[in-house]
Amino acid sequence: MSEENKFSFENKEYRQTYWHTCSHVLAQAMKRLHPDVKLAIGPSIDNGFYYDFDTPAPFTPEDLAALEGEMRKICKEKLKLERFELPRAEAVKFMEEKEEPYKVELINDLPEDAVISFYKQGDFTDLCAGPHLDSTGRIKGNAIKLTSATGAYWRGDSNRKMLQRIYGIAFPKKEELDAYLEQQAEALKRDHNKLGRDLEYFTTVDYIGQGLPILLPKGARVIQLLQRWVEDVEQKRGYLLTKTPLMAKRDLYRISGHWDHYLDGMFILGDPHDETKECFALRPMTCPFQYQVFLNRQRSYRELPMRLGETSTLFRNEDSGEMHGLIRVRQFTISEGHLILRPDQLEEEFKGCLDLAKYCLETVGMLDKCTFRFSQWNPANPNNKYEGTAEQWDHAQAAMKKILDDLGVNYEVGFDEAAFYGPKLDIQFHNVFGKEDTIVTIQIDMLLAEKFGMYYVDENGEKKLPYIIHRTSLGCYERTLAYLIETYAGALPTWMAPEQVRFLPVTDRAVDYCYELAHKLEANGYRATVDARNEKIGKKIREGQLEKIPYMLVVGDRDMENNTVSPRNRTEGDMGAMSFEAFEAILKDVVDSKAKK
Amino acid sequence: MSEENKFSFENKEYRQTYWHTCSHVLAQAMKRLHPDVKLAIGPSIDNGFYYDFDTPAPFTPEDLAALEGEMRKICKEKLKLERFELPRAEAVKFMEEKEEPYKVELINDLPEDAVISFYKQGDFTDLCAGPHLDSTGRIKGNAIKLTSATGAYWRGDSNRKMLQRIYGIAFPKKEELDAYLEQQAEALKRDHNKLGRDLEYFTTVDYIGQGLPILLPKGARVIQLLQRWVEDVEQKRGYLLTKTPLMAKRDLYRISGHWDHYLDGMFILGDPHDETKECFALRPMTCPFQYQVFLNRQRSYRELPMRLGETSTLFRNEDSGEMHGLIRVRQFTISEGHLILRPDQLEEEFKGCLDLAKYCLETVGMLDKCTFRFSQWNPANPNNKYEGTAEQWDHAQAAMKKILDDLGVNYEVGFDEAAFYGPKLDIQFHNVFGKEDTIVTIQIDMLLAEKFGMYYVDENGEKKLPYIIHRTSLGCYERTLAYLIETYAGALPTWMAPEQVRFLPVTDRAVDYCYELAHKLEANGYRATVDARNEKIGKKIREGQLEKIPYMLVVGDRDMENNTVSPRNRTEGDMGAMSFEAFEAILKDVVDSKAKK
Repeated sequence: MSEENKFSFENKEYRQTYWHTCSHVLAQAMKRLHPDVKLAIGPSIDNGFYYDFDTPAPFTPEDLAALEGEMRKICKEKLKLERFELPRAEAVKFMEEKEEPYKVELINDLPEDAVISFYKQGDFTDLCAGPHLDSTGRIKGNAIKLTSATGAYWRGDSNRKMLQRIYGIAFPKKEELDAYLEQQAEALKRDHNKLGRDLEYFTTVDYIGQGLPILLPKGARVIQLLQRWVEDVEQKRGYLLTKTPLMAKRDLYRISGHWDHYLDGMFILGDPHDETKECFALRPMTCPFQYQVFLNRQRSYRELPMRLGETSTLFRNEDSGEMHGLIRVRQFTISEGHLILRPDQLEEEFKGCLDLAKYCLETVGMLDKCTFRFSQWNPANPNNKYEGTAEQWDHAQAAMKKILDDLGVNYEVGFDEAAFYGPKLDIQFHNVFGKEDTIVTIQIDMLLAEKFGMYYVDENGEKKLPYIIHRTSLGCYERTLAYLIETYAGALPTWMAPEQVRFLPVTDRAVDYCYELAHKLEANGYRATVDARNEKIGKKIREGQLEKIPYMLVVGDRDMENNTVSPRNRTEGDMGAMSFEAFEAILKDVVDSKAKK
Repeated sequence: MSEENKFSFENKEYRQTYWHTCSHVLAQAMKRLHPDVKLAIGPSIDNGFYYDFDTPAPFTPEDLAALEGEMRKICKEKLKLERFELPRAEAVKFMEEKEEPYKVELINDLPEDAVISFYKQGDFTDLCAGPHLDSTGRIKGNAIKLTSATGAYWRGDSNRKMLQRIYGIAFPKKEELDAYLEQQAEALKRDHNKLGRDLEYFTTVDYIGQGLPILLPKGARVIQLLQRWVEDVEQKRGYLLTKTPLMAKRDLYRISGHWDHYLDGMFILGDPHDETKECFALRPMTCPFQYQVFLNRQRSYRELPMRLGETSTLFRNEDSGEMHGLIRVRQFTISEGHLILRPDQLEEEFKGCLDLAKYCLETVGMLDKCTFRFSQWNPANPNNKYEGTAEQWDHAQAAMKKILDDLGVNYEVGFDEAAFYGPKLDIQFHNVFGKEDTIVTIQIDMLLAEKFGMYYVDENGEKKLPYIIHRTSLGCYERTLAYLIETYAGALPTWMAPEQVRFLPVTDRAVDYCYELAHKLEANGYRATVDARNEKIGKKIREGQLEKIPYMLVVGDRDMENNTVSPRNRTEGDMGAMSFEAFEAILKDVVDSKAKK
C-alpha cells in the first residue's frame, strides 16, 4: 500500500481504525443517553463494528435510532481523541470510580508488564489499545448505520452474563452507506439459508442436528449432477477414481499426525484414551486413505504422475453454534484428490490442477468472484511451525511462483500462512455478503510421503520419495450449492437446474400429450415434469416462476394440432410457438454448452 | 418335507445329524491316535462339521490323513450309537475320570434342570444332546474329507486358551464328495477375497481397520458405474433422489427405536450415557433420515406415492473377527429407498419394487442364483415380537402373497421371521461357495410413519397415516462387487468392466495412432488405455488376459496403413482385422445391451 493511500477508506488498516473510532462514538452516545448502562468491549470487525453493553432490556429499533442521532451530534462536535497511559492501580481506580466493572476485569486480566492506555474524547474515556482517528469530526455522522442488536455472552462464555451487542457500519460518504445497505438487502434476498429452504433445496432438523443438512430432491439432484460432471472431467484428465473408507483406527492418524494435532476437530468412535480397545475416528481429510492406493504395490517412475480423485465425504467436529445452512457444516462432500509425482513433474501437474479448478469454477459461473492467495512459509520458522529443508521450500515456492506468473495469476501473498508441509494456493470466493471463504486449495506437500513410506523406483532402480499435490476441483459440494443459489438468486443455470422443463397443459386433452413430450425429453437425459393439477394456467405460471423453472411449456389444443409448443423462458419470457423439435434443439444447445442461463 | 425324504441327505435335518455323527467319529479317531488330546466341542455346521481339540501343536496334513484313515475304520466297525443320561454329579465325575476338563466345564455351566445326556459308540463316549445316526456304519467312510485345521479360542473368547479346530465334510457317496471338493476348488479360484485383491479391485490395511476396504481405481470405477446406473434406472421409474446425513443426534434414534434396540450395533460419537453433552451415532439405516424429506412440509394424497431413493452409506459396528473382504464390512454403500403411499397403492408399488430388484439383479447376471423368502409374522405374537393389529398384518401379508402369486414367484415361507413392523420379501443370493446371503429386501412397514408423525391429507381433508415400503434395488455395492467378481471369475461384463479396451501397439510408430483411437473411444464414453511399454507383444497379451481385459487391440504398421484394428476378445479370442468403426459398433452393441460378456 503506497503512502498516498494510507488515509483512504480503501486501506484496510485505515478502515478498521475508522470503524473502531465509530464504536467509541457509539459508547459515548450510549453513556449520554443511558448513563447506567455498563460498557464491555467494542472492536471493529470485517464489516463495521460493534459494542457490547450490560443493560437489563434488549435495545429496540427506536433506541438504535436515538443512538444514531446522538452519534451524529458527537461527530459534529469534532471532539479530539487523546491517548494517555496509567499505572495499573490508578487505571483500576479510574474505572472503579466510573463504575465500569467489565473494564476493571479487563485491566486486572492484562499481563503484568502491559502498557495500560486510554482514549479520551470530550466527556468520554475508554480503556483501549488504539489506534484511533484524531477527531470524531473525521467521521461522517449521516453515513453511520446501527444495523442490528443481539445478545452476546460476556467474553463469549455461556456461563457468564448475557450482554446486549449493537452492530454498526459507517462510510465516509452517505452514498457509500446507501449502496452498501442496498447491496446487503439484495444479498439477504439471495441468502441460501432462506432461499435454499424456500425453494426446497435443503432443510435441517433439530433432532438430527445442526450442521447436518438434509438435501431434498432438488438439492440432491444438483449435487449429483455436479459430482458426476467433476468425476467425468477428472477422468478425462487422467484421474483414477478411488473410494476409500470414511473412518480409520487411531493408528492411521498417529502416522499422519492428526492424532496429535487435530484430535479435537475429529469425531471419535470409542474412548480415545483407552488403549486396550479399538478406537476409530471419522476422517477430516482424505490424504492418508488415498495414499493406500499408491502403497498397494511397488511403483515405478513410469507410473507417475499418479492422479487420484475421489468424491469424498469428510467430517469436522465443530460447535453447534458455528453451524450455518450449507456453508458451515459437520459433514460435507468434496472432490478431493492427490497427485503423486516426480519432482520434475511438479510444475506441469500444478498447472494442470490450477487449470482444472479454474475450468470448474468458470463453468459454474463462480470464477469472477474469486481471488488468489499464495500462502508461503516464514524462513525464520518461528516455533518450528514448518517441516522440511529451506531447499525444499525454495524449490516448491519458486515452482509455484513461476507457474502463477506464467499464467498471469493476480495473487496476494500470505506470508507465514503456508501449511506445515508446504506452500499452497488458496482460491478465495467472495460471496454476496462480501464475505470471503477458501473454496479451492492446491497444496504442495514434501513431507507426508516420507511419513507413510511412499517410495517409487526411479530409472536407476533407486527408491525415491515423490512430491504430492493435495487439491480440490470445485470445493465442497454443499457449500458450492449454497454459493450457486446466492450467485443465481435461486435460478440455477439450465444445465444444472433440478427441473429444466415444466409442461403446463391448458386442457384435459393436452395432458397425455404433455406426458408424451416430457418422456421424450427424459429419454434424452433432460429433467421434465407435467403440472397436471386442476388449477388455472395463470396460477401455474406464477408458481413456476417462483420456483425458477428455466422453461415452462404451455400446451393447448392448438399446439396439439400443429405439433407445436409455446415455451416461456424464466428470463426471456414468451418465446412464441415453435415445433417441439425446435425447442429441444434450443434446450440441447443451452445444456450442452453449460450456458450460464 | 415328506416322510419318505426324512432320511435323505437332501433333508437338512438328516444332513446335520449325519455330519454331527461324523464329528463324534473324528473325536473317537483322535482319542485312538492321540489319547492325550483333550476334547472341547464338535458341532455340525452349514457345510460339514468341526471339532475343537486341546493339543500343544497344530495338526499337520499328515495328521489329518491319519485321522481320516482311522475314521474309515470306525465306520467299517459299524459301532452302535447309544444315548444315556446321568445326574449332574455323576456326569461330572464321569468326565473327570476321563480327564476331559472342557467337558466338565460344559456340564457345570448347564442350567440347574438340564437333562445331561451322553452318546456312546464303542470305546468312545461324548457329552452330547444329539440326535445322532444309530450306527457309525451309516457313514460312508471313504466319502469323508478333513478339509482344514485352524486355531480357535475356547468358547470364542480371546482371553481363553487357543484350541486346534479340524473342519470336515462328508457325503453318502464318494462321487458327491468329489463333486463338492471340485466345486470348492473352483469357488476358491473365484474367491473375491483373493481374486479381487490380485486384480487390484480392493485392498485392506491393518492400520485403517478390518471391514473398511479401500476400493482401488478398478473397484471404485465399477461401483461408480453401478451406482450411476441404478440411480438413473430409479429416476426413470419416478424416484426422487435424496442425500441425507450419515449421522444424527441420539434424539433421532430414540424416536425410531434404534437407541433402545440397536445401540450395540451402532458406532457412537461421544458418551451415550452423558445426557449433558451432544451425542451422535453413525446411521445403520437410512429410514428416519429419508422420512424428513416427506416431513419437510404438509403432503397431499395427490403427492403419493412418493418414491425416495438414495445412494446411501451405512455403518455397522461389528467385531473385527467377523470381517471378510467386501462381504462383511463395517461401512457400506447401498441403494436404499422408501416409498410412502396410500394403502390402495400398496400392491402396485410393491410389484414395482420387486420388478425393479429383479431387473437390476437380472441385468448384472445374478438373478439366476437367487431364491425368494416370504417372511411372515406369527399370529400368536410371542413376547410381543410384532407391533400393529392383526388386520394390518393380514392386509399386508395378503397383498404380498397376491403379488408374489400373481407374478408366479417361487418362494419359501419364513414363519415368524417378519420384521417387527411388517412382513418382508428377502431375495437370497447363493454364492459360489454355496453360502446364502440376503442381497435385496422389500419390506412393508405399517408403524414407523406413526412414530415420526408422517401424515398426508386425504381427499376429504383428513389426516391419514401412509404405508411405507423399505427397499433396495441391488443391495450393498461392495458385496455386489464381490459377488460379481466371483460370478464372472473376475471377467466382469464389458459394460461394467473398469477397463474395456486396451491398445497394444506393435511398433513405436503405432503408439500415437493407438492414443488417437483410445481418445476417440473415451470421447464416446468408453474406457480405453494404451499399453505403450517397451515389452514383447506376447507378454502384453498374456498380462491383459490375466487382467481379464474384454478387448485387446493389437495395432501394427499394416493396421495403420489400412485403417484397421485386430481385436482379441478375452473369450472369443482373435476376431480378425476390421475397420476401427466396425469394432466400435461391436463394442457399442455389447455395452448398450449390457450383454453378460
